[in-house]
Amino acid sequence: MTLDPASNETMEALSTDDPAQGVAVSLAARYREVRARTLGLRGTLSEEDCVVQSMPDASPLKWHLAHTTWFFETFVLSAEVDDYRTFDPAYAVLFNSYYNTVGEQYPRSDRGLLTRPSLGEVTAYRRDVDNWMEKLLAAGVSPDVEAVVELGLHHEQQHQELILTDLKHLLSRNPLRPVYVPGAEASEVEVPPLQWKRYPEALHWIGHEGEEFHFDNEGPRHRVFLDTFSIATRLVTNGEFLEFMADGGYSRPDLWLADGWACVQQRAWEAPLYWERDEAAGSASREGWHQMTLSGLRDLRLCEPLCHVSYYEADAFASWAGARLPSEAEWEVAASSVPVTAADDSGELRLDRRLSGRFADDGRFHPLPVSAQMPSELAQLFGDVWEWTRSPYVAYPGYRVPAGAIGEYNGKFMSNQMVLRGGSCVSSRSHLRASYRNFFYPDARWQFSGLRLARDVEPVERAKLS
Amino acid sequence: MTLDPASNETMEALSTDDPAQGVAVSLAARYREVRARTLGLRGTLSEEDCVVQSMPDASPLKWHLAHTTWFFETFVLSAEVDDYRTFDPAYAVLFNSYYNTVGEQYPRSDRGLLTRPSLGEVTAYRRDVDNWMEKLLAAGVSPDVEAVVELGLHHEQQHQELILTDLKHLLSRNPLRPVYVPGAEASEVEVPPLQWKRYPEALHWIGHEGEEFHFDNEGPRHRVFLDTFSIATRLVTNGEFLEFMADGGYSRPDLWLADGWACVQQRAWEAPLYWERDEAAGSASREGWHQMTLSGLRDLRLCEPLCHVSYYEADAFASWAGARLPSEAEWEVAASSVPVTAADDSGELRLDRRLSGRFADDGRFHPLPVSAQMPSELAQLFGDVWEWTRSPYVAYPGYRVPAGAIGEYNGKFMSNQMVLRGGSCVSSRSHLRASYRNFFYPDARWQFSGLRLARDVEPVERAKLS
Amino acid sequence: MTLDPASNETMEALSTDDPAQGVAVSLAARYREVRARTLGLRGTLSEEDCVVQSMPDASPLKWHLAHTTWFFETFVLSAEVDDYRTFDPAYAVLFNSYYNTVGEQYPRSDRGLLTRPSLGEVTAYRRDVDNWMEKLLAAGVSPDVEAVVELGLHHEQQHQELILTDLKHLLSRNPLRPVYVPGAEASEVEVPPLQWKRYPEALHWIGHEGEEFHFDNEGPRHRVFLDTFSIATRLVTNGEFLEFMADGGYSRPDLWLADGWACVQQRAWEAPLYWERDEAAGSASREGWHQMTLSGLRDLRLCEPLCHVSYYEADAFASWAGARLPSEAEWEVAASSVPVTAADDSGELRLDRRLSGRFADDGRFHPLPVSAQMPSELAQLFGDVWEWTRSPYVAYPGYRVPAGAIGEYNGKFMSNQMVLRGGSCVSSRSHLRASYRNFFYPDARWQFSGLRLARDVEPVERAKLS
Amino acid sequence: MTLDPASNETMEALSTDDPAQGVAVSLAARYREVRARTLGLRGTLSEEDCVVQSMPDASPLKWHLAHTTWFFETFVLSAEVDDYRTFDPAYAVLFNSYYNTVGEQYPRSDRGLLTRPSLGEVTAYRRDVDNWMEKLLAAGVSPDVEAVVELGLHHEQQHQELILTDLKHLLSRNPLRPVYVPGAEASEVEVPPLQWKRYPEALHWIGHEGEEFHFDNEGPRHRVFLDTFSIATRLVTNGEFLEFMADGGYSRPDLWLADGWACVQQRAWEAPLYWERDEAAGSASREGWHQMTLSGLRDLRLCEPLCHVSYYEADAFASWAGARLPSEAEWEVAASSVPVTAADDSGELRLDRRLSGRFADDGRFHPLPVSAQMPSELAQLFGDVWEWTRSPYVAYPGYRVPAGAIGEYNGKFMSNQMVLRGGSCVSSRSHLRASYRNFFYPDARWQFSGLRLARDVEPVERAKLS
Repeated sequence: MTLDPASNETMEALSTDDPAQGVAVSLAARYREVRARTLGLRGTLSEEDCVVQSMPDASPLKWHLAHTTWFFETFVLSAEVDDYRTFDPAYAVLFNSYYNTVGEQYPRSDRGLLTRPSLGEVTAYRRDVDNWMEKLLAAGVSPDVEAVVELGLHHEQQHQELILTDLKHLLSRNPLRPVYVPGAEASEVEVPPLQWKRYPEALHWIGHEGEEFHFDNEGPRHRVFLDTFSIATRLVTNGEFLEFMADGGYSRPDLWLADGWACVQQRAWEAPLYWERDEAAGSASREGWHQMTLSGLRDLRLCEPLCHVSYYEADAFASWAGARLPSEAEWEVAASSVPVTAADDSGELRLDRRLSGRFADDGRFHPLPVSAQMPSELAQLFGDVWEWTRSPYVAYPGYRVPAGAIGEYNGKFMSNQMVLRGGSCVSSRSHLRASYRNFFYPDARWQFSGLRLARDVEPVERAKLS
Repeated sequence: MTLDPASNETMEALSTDDPAQGVAVSLAARYREVRARTLGLRGTLSEEDCVVQSMPDASPLKWHLAHTTWFFETFVLSAEVDDYRTFDPAYAVLFNSYYNTVGEQYPRSDRGLLTRPSLGEVTAYRRDVDNWMEKLLAAGVSPDVEAVVELGLHHEQQHQELILTDLKHLLSRNPLRPVYVPGAEASEVEVPPLQWKRYPEALHWIGHEGEEFHFDNEGPRHRVFLDTFSIATRLVTNGEFLEFMADGGYSRPDLWLADGWACVQQRAWEAPLYWERDEAAGSASREGWHQMTLSGLRDLRLCEPLCHVSYYEADAFASWAGARLPSEAEWEVAASSVPVTAADDSGELRLDRRLSGRFADDGRFHPLPVSAQMPSELAQLFGDVWEWTRSPYVAYPGYRVPAGAIGEYNGKFMSNQMVLRGGSCVSSRSHLRASYRNFFYPDARWQFSGLRLARDVEPVERAKLS
Repeated sequence: MTLDPASNETMEALSTDDPAQGVAVSLAARYREVRARTLGLRGTLSEEDCVVQSMPDASPLKWHLAHTTWFFETFVLSAEVDDYRTFDPAYAVLFNSYYNTVGEQYPRSDRGLLTRPSLGEVTAYRRDVDNWMEKLLAAGVSPDVEAVVELGLHHEQQHQELILTDLKHLLSRNPLRPVYVPGAEASEVEVPPLQWKRYPEALHWIGHEGEEFHFDNEGPRHRVFLDTFSIATRLVTNGEFLEFMADGGYSRPDLWLADGWACVQQRAWEAPLYWERDEAAGSASREGWHQMTLSGLRDLRLCEPLCHVSYYEADAFASWAGARLPSEAEWEVAASSVPVTAADDSGELRLDRRLSGRFADDGRFHPLPVSAQMPSELAQLFGDVWEWTRSPYVAYPGYRVPAGAIGEYNGKFMSNQMVLRGGSCVSSRSHLRASYRNFFYPDARWQFSGLRLARDVEPVERAKLS
Repeated sequence: MTLDPASNETMEALSTDDPAQGVAVSLAARYREVRARTLGLRGTLSEEDCVVQSMPDASPLKWHLAHTTWFFETFVLSAEVDDYRTFDPAYAVLFNSYYNTVGEQYPRSDRGLLTRPSLGEVTAYRRDVDNWMEKLLAAGVSPDVEAVVELGLHHEQQHQELILTDLKHLLSRNPLRPVYVPGAEASEVEVPPLQWKRYPEALHWIGHEGEEFHFDNEGPRHRVFLDTFSIATRLVTNGEFLEFMADGGYSRPDLWLADGWACVQQRAWEAPLYWERDEAAGSASREGWHQMTLSGLRDLRLCEPLCHVSYYEADAFASWAGARLPSEAEWEVAASSVPVTAADDSGELRLDRRLSGRFADDGRFHPLPVSAQMPSELAQLFGDVWEWTRSPYVAYPGYRVPAGAIGEYNGKFMSNQMVLRGGSCVSSRSHLRASYRNFFYPDARWQFSGLRLARDVEPVERAKLS
């Protein structure tokens, strides 16, 4: 396909928003919206805030802006548009994250050294690619290309979330306690007691089903046999985790996986990430704890969902509580069973009803307590915090790594990581679904990660939590 | 229970081998045999060979001798014998491997610094504990204690295997190429072409069944649903792996898991562990390769099973071959389906028929090519080399960590490791069974680890291997 | 002393430049000039360029701006001005470099995480402190305070140099090859042959003499006995170092100190820092070399002084050349012996005549070839590149660490570092003198460091260089 | 030269001890004595004790036995004896320490992996080389060869000392507290108060003088000018160091060099190496301290010389005491000025008179308190503990690295290390002299290293120590 970049015709055509253009117009609109939201995340951040990398796992906001643009340039424009002229050929290496198939990559741990190109140049790069993409989408694309664009948008939503987690890490390292979004301290609210929902043993289908977008790793849909299990009706709270801490949670090796215990000792973990204690307060006290948030340092609220724990901490807490983490299949079965209370007239909106929760869409970027009028069934499945499962991230039966560079998207990470489910308060609502598989190393804590308990069918002595 | 250590009465009683003593005698005999075999592994090794630790993952032979003894002392004698007097109280810390519940441990990475106690003292410690154990077993023990003794014997068999893998690593680092057991160079033999055995989709029971000994992690027995799969009738050979290497296997990131590729680059892996190349030979040549073995440096035999590869290498090879590794459930289903050709008259011997293969019992300590008269069904399931599966080592549904120190035996290692199945040429035949789950980190190469291919049901383009 | 910050009176008084105010006015003028030059170094750099830290040894420009301000705040204003109100109390920790006596320090390796305070805020902090300082100096200060202010100005000049070396390192890591100051490629010029100037054995006085400013480590003035030595009349050039490289310099352990050879191997050094080679060119070729400069990537000029080598490389080159590095005493004796060609009418200007050379004052920030009309005596002593000496940085006889925080300025670094002499093209001319002792670890290369040869009196076979 | 190894003739010739054979016989006798003493150091150590390496800086006893033999083989036999047949050609690499000129080296940090060759084989290797050497020396050698043999003997004496320091480190890591030589606990004795001996300013000659053996780094003899200085009449004691500790010595950064303070924090230093405290005792208490020695764990004796401190600790102590360490020139001037009380009739014995002190010859391997009848002048100059000086280890003026492999002996280590003087209780008396320069990295503590104070001429406030 050839696009005349000098012509504005297609842009005008696009702006007429002719419903006859069907899916292409809808995709273009969605493209515009997702891309705008990414840029909007800069908010009041300075150029300085956008360039620094606070650890090898995190990337600067500017890099995220550029890399998401590189994705469309590399996998759509360069592949599909014959007369495409790149904004800057050097970006092909600078902003390639990990696609060996595409070519060389600037080292991940050095992303924070890229004071050039400037934030302004990267913004111009975004604009340039957006212009080409608008024209391409207006001209109409094949279903295959459409699929890559759709993938690019979900890829960008993933980076929107990373922008926030990486920013939170950066700001947390600054003794000045910078505030990204305003947010008042809130008082404690009553959390309903944790209850268990039981699912009898059965052969279930899990994995993605239907025509909507999903990542390759969510399929193929397949059968798993699950023994009877119970799953908690809400997330574990800060208050409950403080009980674990007060009971010596961080100093009892019997509660921990061996690798987790090694982490506790080597990194001197004593509390979840971003928790800080007044020096005056005793270590096991429920008092005197603060939490760094994207609204600055705030008093710890016991009623809020526990957040920023590693898999190891989640697992140790579950052991202490006489329970365990759910498997990802259990979680998906439970999440898929939550009834949709109202019929939808369009496929696009159907999921939105189900996904009640707190998402990045709220602009709060912090998990909230479960509401008092919580459904009798399961609450907090989507949004708030990602829920660690006991499932290592591996391929589903029958999974084949897609051919080409896109094959590097998910498949090559299928070792040493654990699956998290449900999304968080920094995920976009439209990005999530019950089959969504997120994955991180078990020692990672800078994501908005918490947990929900599960247990086997046998009645378990759980005096501590009841 | 009280035992008079000065009296030799029970020893005599034991030596009468009175069948009326039933299981207790049998356990005592087995105790004697297993313990003797451990000591026998010293062979012609010098005291110097027995004290050195060649890397943090490995332990000196002397430490293995002492630690296996500590196991019986700690979990049997100290717990059960009221008048037990320890050989040396310092050993409680020195030879505790990783049991936090029991107490402090001498650091794992420093085991090679223990020139004292001497090998002679450790041997005396073994003898002392053995004397007490003989008396205890002769006096008769409860089923609970019997179970711990049985566990201790399987524990000791695991360490017998580690003695050999750790020793191989130590000797391999020595430019003098020491020989542990004599072994002649052997010529190539024809390997039958790899074939596939297909299993239709079904709900299977896996996990240990029956009264025989098994580790806690082999249960509970539970159901898994498996889609139709095929599994290779034999192991991958050195010759096949050389083809992978000749095709650029170690320099093509597209074949590797991301963490595996990082290993390849950081550690400059270019071949399996213990392979060495004549400098004159080209790197992709099938010629000029040697292999360090427990019989010294020998020419690489193409017909032998591939050995000493990491999970990453096994996975990359499978990707290159257009196949995949089997899951542990697939492996177990396949291994359990191999017909037993002759009926047994005793429970103890039944398994022996099935476990045809090369084990430590042969004293060869090196895998052998599949025999020409290979069964039409599956070959090499047991012995020769441990087979990497695609399954992370996690708890089976319903698994509960046992209470007390024994709970640390297996449960706390259920993260970041991969399951291997089938045993190797350095495992004891009597130690293995179809439900046995071995586990190592995916980058480990010093175990006798190889692979068998599997694939999904769809006909796969596998020109390279056919 | 109390200063009314609301009043502008003293500022006006200062601007009258009344010669009757004597030294205080002169110091104020110097204060203004030095402080302005620091700010001016920002040039066309973006905010992003000013916040990033490219390695633990380097600091961001913004941090340098703040730390030099902190110095005056901490050691002058807080100590001397009763009504001083700090701009922000958090800065006391954030911008303390290494003064344990003053209090806690933000970790050196994390300086690049400080996106806040913003560059704008740091500039305002500078302005605020400058206002207070202007008033204080206008009000007149005691000789003791004057001495601390003078120290602060020389401290600031040191940081001016570090701003440039740290910036060069940052920009060199960016594949876009950013340009800080414009600078054209220049052609080769003829370098006069290296000659030797001989100094007979004698007892010399070295160390600072006179009333002018000097650091504590330049004294006490003391006697050293020097055997007869010869010192080269000019610096070693890039061309000469290429000969060393072509002769296998980086692959011959016999030329290197043991610690230096370990560096060569561990860090894979093959050329001076910032040198790059066209991949097409052979490694030993004189062709195809480029050099990253503050004017971007340029062809290597053989006639220019060698720069950005470690002590180890300087020492290895000297060994290869059959010579050695001068001791700092030899260098100082030589530098002090260069005749001043014109009489001065004031003590302050006297040194300027002698310090012919290329300094930061030129704004070129790159060393230049020795001029054809080079004096028959010693050339390039000051400016261009710091000259590694063979002298470890230790206290002079009779040196006592000053009391208080200022005692941490120099004394505590007197181990493991080597002395460099003479200043470089990024030093201010007014900052240098013959007794000036700079010091860096022997593996440091990001400073503008080169070398001059020396030799003992015996005629040395030096065919290679002659 | 050719030696017939089958003939025993020369051996017999040698045994006649014919004085007519002159120097060769004398050298042979000394060869025999030094080599025997090395072997004798094995004492009651097991083979296991002799093979293990406890840290990269240390080497196993067996390695020392082999390397010192390799020295004679490589630099004498292979170079001089035409028909020399090596015991095992593999040893050329295995036991080369760091001579790049000679060839490849087995990695230093892996020396502890060499369980083969066995201790028995290494002893046979020693015997074999000794036989050849006996024959060579009996046959008579040129002065040049004689010099190399002499160097080899002093080299061996250095390794005798390292055998003991490395062994002490190994045994100290063993919780069983092994004893190498018996040694009773001793009671405290009165230590005479520290006094100062003053030397007026002067131009001195230092460096080796005369015909006796010395290392290349002790020359050339040259002049140094020294300002007036005072030096302490005895070593610093454990008791004095405990005062430093009680005064917060390890927690006051103002007392430390910056690199030293970093060591204190990173390595959590709280006391000299090998000191241990009863947990019951308070940290600043003089009570409750023990010290690991080659005779096992013993109560700390306050009267003994402080030992096993790093340069950083020595320097910090001196700062705390209001004094400083002597320079090596000051030490040598002082040590050379001690009068020889009796005339010698032979060059060989002359030094012995001067070298009163405790040496390895005593077989005690532990420093002793200064005796009550201490000379009014300087005590403890030789033996007991090596004395850290403030002098970095660099070349003397006019020093040239010798040609060939021997040039690697000392010259290439002339960076980053500090000079120690005087020898220790594990040095051989015949190995020491006033001009001897030992050198170690400033953080090294496993040598028998202590300190003696010095100060500038001004009367210093030294209330703490007086």
